[in-house]
Amino acid sequence: MATTAGESNSSHYTKIGLSEDEIPTQWYNIVADLPKPPPPPLHPKTLQPITADDLAPLFPMELIRQEVSAERYIDIPPEVREIYRLWRPSPLFRARRLEKLLGTPARIYYKYEGVSPAGSHKPNTAVPQAYYNKAEGVKKLTTETGAGQWGSALAFATSLLGMDCEVWQVRASYDAKPHRKTMMELWGATVHPSPSPLTQSGRAVLKETPDTPGSLGIAISEAVEVAAADPDARYALGSVLNHVLLHQTVIGEEALKQLAKVGETPDIVIGCTGGGSNFAGLAFPILREKMAGRMSPRVLAVEPAACPSLTKGKYVYDYGDTAGLTPLVKMHTLGHSFVPDPIHAGGLRYHGMAPLISHVYDLGLIDAIAIPQKECFDAATAFLRSEGILPAPEPTHALAATIREAKKCIETGESKVILTTLCGHGHFDMSSYEKFLSGSLEDLDYPEDKVAAALADLPKIE
Amino acid sequence: MATTAGESNSSHYTKIGLSEDEIPTQWYNIVADLPKPPPPPLHPKTLQPITADDLAPLFPMELIRQEVSAERYIDIPPEVREIYRLWRPSPLFRARRLEKLLGTPARIYYKYEGVSPAGSHKPNTAVPQAYYNKAEGVKKLTTETGAGQWGSALAFATSLLGMDCEVWQVRASYDAKPHRKTMMELWGATVHPSPSPLTQSGRAVLKETPDTPGSLGIAISEAVEVAAADPDARYALGSVLNHVLLHQTVIGEEALKQLAKVGETPDIVIGCTGGGSNFAGLAFPILREKMAGRMSPRVLAVEPAACPSLTKGKYVYDYGDTAGLTPLVKMHTLGHSFVPDPIHAGGLRYHGMAPLISHVYDLGLIDAIAIPQKECFDAATAFLRSEGILPAPEPTHALAATIREAKKCIETGESKVILTTLCGHGHFDMSSYEKFLSGSLEDLDYPEDKVAAALADLPKIE
Repeated sequence: MATTAGESNSSHYTKIGLSEDEIPTQWYNIVADLPKPPPPPLHPKTLQPITADDLAPLFPMELIRQEVSAERYIDIPPEVREIYRLWRPSPLFRARRLEKLLGTPARIYYKYEGVSPAGSHKPNTAVPQAYYNKAEGVKKLTTETGAGQWGSALAFATSLLGMDCEVWQVRASYDAKPHRKTMMELWGATVHPSPSPLTQSGRAVLKETPDTPGSLGIAISEAVEVAAADPDARYALGSVLNHVLLHQTVIGEEALKQLAKVGETPDIVIGCTGGGSNFAGLAFPILREKMAGRMSPRVLAVEPAACPSLTKGKYVYDYGDTAGLTPLVKMHTLGHSFVPDPIHAGGLRYHGMAPLISHVYDLGLIDAIAIPQKECFDAATAFLRSEGILPAPEPTHALAATIREAKKCIETGESKVILTTLCGHGHFDMSSYEKFLSGSLEDLDYPEDKVAAALADLPKIE
Repeated sequence: MATTAGESNSSHYTKIGLSEDEIPTQWYNIVADLPKPPPPPLHPKTLQPITADDLAPLFPMELIRQEVSAERYIDIPPEVREIYRLWRPSPLFRARRLEKLLGTPARIYYKYEGVSPAGSHKPNTAVPQAYYNKAEGVKKLTTETGAGQWGSALAFATSLLGMDCEVWQVRASYDAKPHRKTMMELWGATVHPSPSPLTQSGRAVLKETPDTPGSLGIAISEAVEVAAADPDARYALGSVLNHVLLHQTVIGEEALKQLAKVGETPDIVIGCTGGGSNFAGLAFPILREKMAGRMSPRVLAVEPAACPSLTKGKYVYDYGDTAGLTPLVKMHTLGHSFVPDPIHAGGLRYHGMAPLISHVYDLGLIDAIAIPQKECFDAATAFLRSEGILPAPEPTHALAATIREAKKCIETGESKVILTTLCGHGHFDMSSYEKFLSGSLEDLDYPEDKVAAALADLPKIE
């Protein structure tokens, strides 16, 4: 809760820890508390609401059950909590040195998910996804990866659970980030550049544009195609879907406990959004508290100006992938054929927003803004030089918004409590930082024509 | 303490934390407890024991005082503890998944120093070194870096304290690891490849061997030369010296508290050694307990077979650098002109061992072994696939020895308590892992002729 400048209601801590016993025992499902249920996914051919049977070739039954569940809480299996212990509870930091650098009376807290072995929040869902698949006899998981955070997380999870893992890495990233590939291979995964000649979807794209840099949408098509054709394999997605967002709620549940330990309640909650899983992980448990009237923070999603699905996209039914193999979901989308300009180094390149976040946004429960990438990398530098940690490009969007809010507090004199997530470190994103240091990082105008073209290509549902 | 197989005297924890208040308030100086004082450093020209005045152009007075101190404990300044809070106390993990993978009754604990913003144990000393220099009016620190861990740590520390930092990075590393350079530059440091045309020492080497890959010894000469000539600058060393080892004792002090929390005492303590600071940081507080009769672990230093200063070097006076600008110190050395073969990817490439560790080894308080690099990378893979974390190449030596000891326990049925440090993550060492995956990593025979040649080149003191 905001206090006036100078006042302090907390002792002198920097890192707020929790014991292992305080790792959450349940994930929180926001659907149970929403005033209106989210629109159902539709079958890409029949356009009828999708059934469990439709999804069975891609996902294990337990994840399908979670995807459509309206239960408020879902138990975390002991075997999953056991692996969570390798990095959870993750620390919550009070950013005292950043506050001092900015000269702000705001109290800034960040939940740091980069402590996971894969370096981001992604293992929070990779581990349960691998676990449920294995429990139902699945031998191999297929997936896509862009920047590489998700592919690394799934390779890590399948390695610990003794499963095979096959990753389609977006071509541009495969070429520019050989270290990410090595990391996945060290965990035992097989990594292909996407588009690849191994799938029908990949071959179709290669035929038309042999030198394409690839996109997440294409890589998803390839991974889905391979999983659907192999009875021993299933597909795993790193964001967007309800069950993925559900698994990430451990972030917000822990943050609430940690803030309570130091007697704080947030005034502003800020997260970056690509597919939306990190944002939802922090924000949904806090929205539960807000809807129940126990706190009243402003909740803010921050996206890149180069790929602004929430602030500029249409809220309509669209495909999750380029080839149109996935179900149709109602989401804020720039069109499934939209690909951000390669000059965009800031991550968060997916064309759509998680349906559940789109729905929550449509209900007016959260706000959204888009920030250009240079401001984000400037924020990263301020953070790095005060707090020490090098952020992944994705959470620099949340940091940029955090700094904006902290600066507002200088003007108003309010000592607001700002809570954000630092969802990953940037150790495998150094080429983006090299561009930034060398001055070759540019801000792009909003790609209006490209989005218009992609939106014209939407499936006609309504 | 070892128990018989199956017996367990501890509850079900994985990560043993400490609160911020449990960050040590003092560093431990082992010199106070040794049966014999260590031999003094000598002036490189007069060959007389070095004086504080001799060292003043290179180091601030407080660090010189610590270098020669015989006090048992030295207070950690509150300002340094304040920065330590960004990553300390570091976690102690029980490696339950690795134990299971190996099928060993041993109980393996590892202290993880990769949680620091620079990714290794090096900031434990970089921060106090920068702090004491700043307190005495120094504006700039110069240093060398090989793999980049130390340069990153000093760049991080000077960034937080608002000082300039100039780093000479060994040419081979500068070319092969551009990301390390970027990391240092993001923290505001200036980075030169070494040898550089900026110094007399660098120019001399370049004239003779223009395409040299460089060495730590040469880079030290350059950094020392520049600091000595600039009244506003001083030099900082990342290992080897007494005060550096002193600062690292926070590792062992925390580990002792953490083991005590779960009712364990170590039977074997294992650390990797290059210059020796990470090993000393863990081992010295434990040797205190051992010398006082409160525990009786075997303490084991592990070095690479390609650069085996403790197990194959001579215990004589030698220079710390190639050009002979540093004081002469009595240490186990392969000769200051020795440079390990470029094929060695495992780090720990320094020609000498910290004088204090050499002395402790000479006194018979510790053991030492050398391990070839392929066994180390195999150990890293086992660790990565069970515990999740990707180790830097350096601590893989300690992991390989840990696995050897854990396997011995399978034969004997003893449930020994093994304690080691994982002194850093390998996120910036992926090219070494790429070599390992591609099969191009080779074990080298012990470079007998090269060492003989370097030892023939030793200064004649005794």
